[in-house]
Amino acid sequence: RINWISDIIVVVSPENIETMKSIVEKYGHKRVTIVKGGITRHRSIFNGLKVFAENEFSNQLLQKPEVVIIHDAVRPFVEEDILSKVVMAAKEHGAAGAIRPLVSTVIASAPDGFLDHSLERARYRASEMPQAFLFDVIYQAYQQCTDYDLDYGTECLHLALKYCKTNAKLVEGTADLWKVTYKWDLYAAESIIKDSLSQQVCVITDVKEPVAKVGFLIHESLKSQTEVQVISMSLSKNDSHLQNNFSGECYSFVCINDKKYDIGETRQLVDMLEKSNIPLLCPVVVISVHLDISENVSFSIGMEELSKIKKFAREVKKKNILVYGLLIQ
Amino acid sequence: RINWISDIIVVVSPENIETMKSIVEKYGHKRVTIVKGGITRHRSIFNGLKVFAENEFSNQLLQKPEVVIIHDAVRPFVEEDILSKVVMAAKEHGAAGAIRPLVSTVIASAPDGFLDHSLERARYRASEMPQAFLFDVIYQAYQQCTDYDLDYGTECLHLALKYCKTNAKLVEGTADLWKVTYKWDLYAAESIIKDSLSQQVCVITDVKEPVAKVGFLIHESLKSQTEVQVISMSLSKNDSHLQNNFSGECYSFVCINDKKYDIGETRQLVDMLEKSNIPLLCPVVVISVHLDISENVSFSIGMEELSKIKKFAREVKKKNILVYGLLIQ
Repeated sequence: RINWISDIIVVVSPENIETMKSIVEKYGHKRVTIVKGGITRHRSIFNGLKVFAENEFSNQLLQKPEVVIIHDAVRPFVEEDILSKVVMAAKEHGAAGAIRPLVSTVIASAPDGFLDHSLERARYRASEMPQAFLFDVIYQAYQQCTDYDLDYGTECLHLALKYCKTNAKLVEGTADLWKVTYKWDLYAAESIIKDSLSQQVCVITDVKEPVAKVGFLIHESLKSQTEVQVISMSLSKNDSHLQNNFSGECYSFVCINDKKYDIGETRQLVDMLEKSNIPLLCPVVVISVHLDISENVSFSIGMEELSKIKKFAREVKKKNILVYGLLIQ
Repeated sequence: RINWISDIIVVVSPENIETMKSIVEKYGHKRVTIVKGGITRHRSIFNGLKVFAENEFSNQLLQKPEVVIIHDAVRPFVEEDILSKVVMAAKEHGAAGAIRPLVSTVIASAPDGFLDHSLERARYRASEMPQAFLFDVIYQAYQQCTDYDLDYGTECLHLALKYCKTNAKLVEGTADLWKVTYKWDLYAAESIIKDSLSQQVCVITDVKEPVAKVGFLIHESLKSQTEVQVISMSLSKNDSHLQNNFSGECYSFVCINDKKYDIGETRQLVDMLEKSNIPLLCPVVVISVHLDISENVSFSIGMEELSKIKKFAREVKKKNILVYGLLIQ
């Protein structure tokens, strides 16, 4: 997703390495190196960093980066903006991490299970991910770590402070950095993905009136509810504008044409979608609208056209592309 | 829900009092007193407590309880077990509160926005709700509070400690005490409710063989997937066992009978459901199964019966009860 990241090291527990390999392959992820995790968080992160410095974990050493980002897989909704902010801050100050306000008051309990004291909520923050470090800072910190740190510690910023005297710059993160921890967090994550997928519609029309005009009208009537992008073009030209759109996050397409007896353009769109690998992640919806503006065409011909679409829809459903036909006379 | 709680004080912001009144009325909540909230958390809680001690907020003073529970509406999944635990602990020690392990490390930031230090996660806990107090302890604490406490404080346990020297007993709570804070927490909450609603099925059959046997078979085949309760009885006796079931959380009913040409029992069940107010909260599903074990009945008679069910289903759908008919020949 983010082109200024040169390498992505995925640290995985030994029993899940094969699964992770197949995920990387299936979705065509690039720049990914899979590394075996350790038995604690810090040991796993250390293993990941060694890929840039030691030959132990990789056949060929990856080029050492100036800055590394450390992130958790349980925070899937990280945005480029916060990644960029922590990287810039780490470059300047050596270390940086995302923080969030505390949702609950934090208290210290005495060994007997009674309240010892409560912290003033405004003075404290939850330390979240992503965090970024100059590679040399965090790698040296891990090299100097005690076994106690590696086994019981959880906070990378703490290691940078303790072993490299680097006070991390704290960067206010957005609420979506929350950690998917409990079962209901999975429900929440699923709903967020569904919501974001359904928030964009791409309308593709011919450049000619009145087809282009219908596209404009759809835009007008939907724009208050959802993000609508209207592309007027000739599909047959294999426009790079449309190709760019596929690399985005759009899963809903409305394809309008006025060519009767012809589903060629819809077929072409579906082909492009298929090649883009987008339907692998989630079903893509294509609504093929046939606009019939002639006065004297018989209704049965339009119906025949729709039955062709129906057959085509059955074919491509297997590929996770849902095609619907609509005839407007 | 919990019969050992004598009064429930709902503290609401002034602009939402009418809405809250209509909610209380609509769902038939008992033992509820609505009180106008203040501009901060502590001022609102203090207003709630005054109902038991001052005439200012209520026409008639409610009887002062020995122990009060303080809870947040944003933690809707609180269970009787934790309420009971904090109350017992408060009765013994003066104050008690639910705690949870910290999900993220907590850090202190310096005024310049850099890391000052991070807290050792194992020594600290998130302070959650519910909390319980001897009424006199928490009320005296609030009476002694400074304006600064009332305006900027957030932690009741802290007030009990500061003003009444009462160290609260900390009680480990369950994960479902989490605070519904962000938009996705609403998704999560909705999913939890849906899940719990669909996890119980009540099967009602006649006591006679073979109807009772079908109930047994349903139980056998569903018990690995969901909680199934089979009640074999005569509905016409208006069994108190069934009434008890309605006060629970069951939203799915299978009603099996072998009486042809008769939807009387289904109608009776629907009447009882309606009176129970259960369908107000969520749709109730009733599957009316007609078991026809005779050899020589014509298929059309069974169909006639089903069409009666269909008509009945249309009627009661308005009341949020969804009736489905099934004929087994």
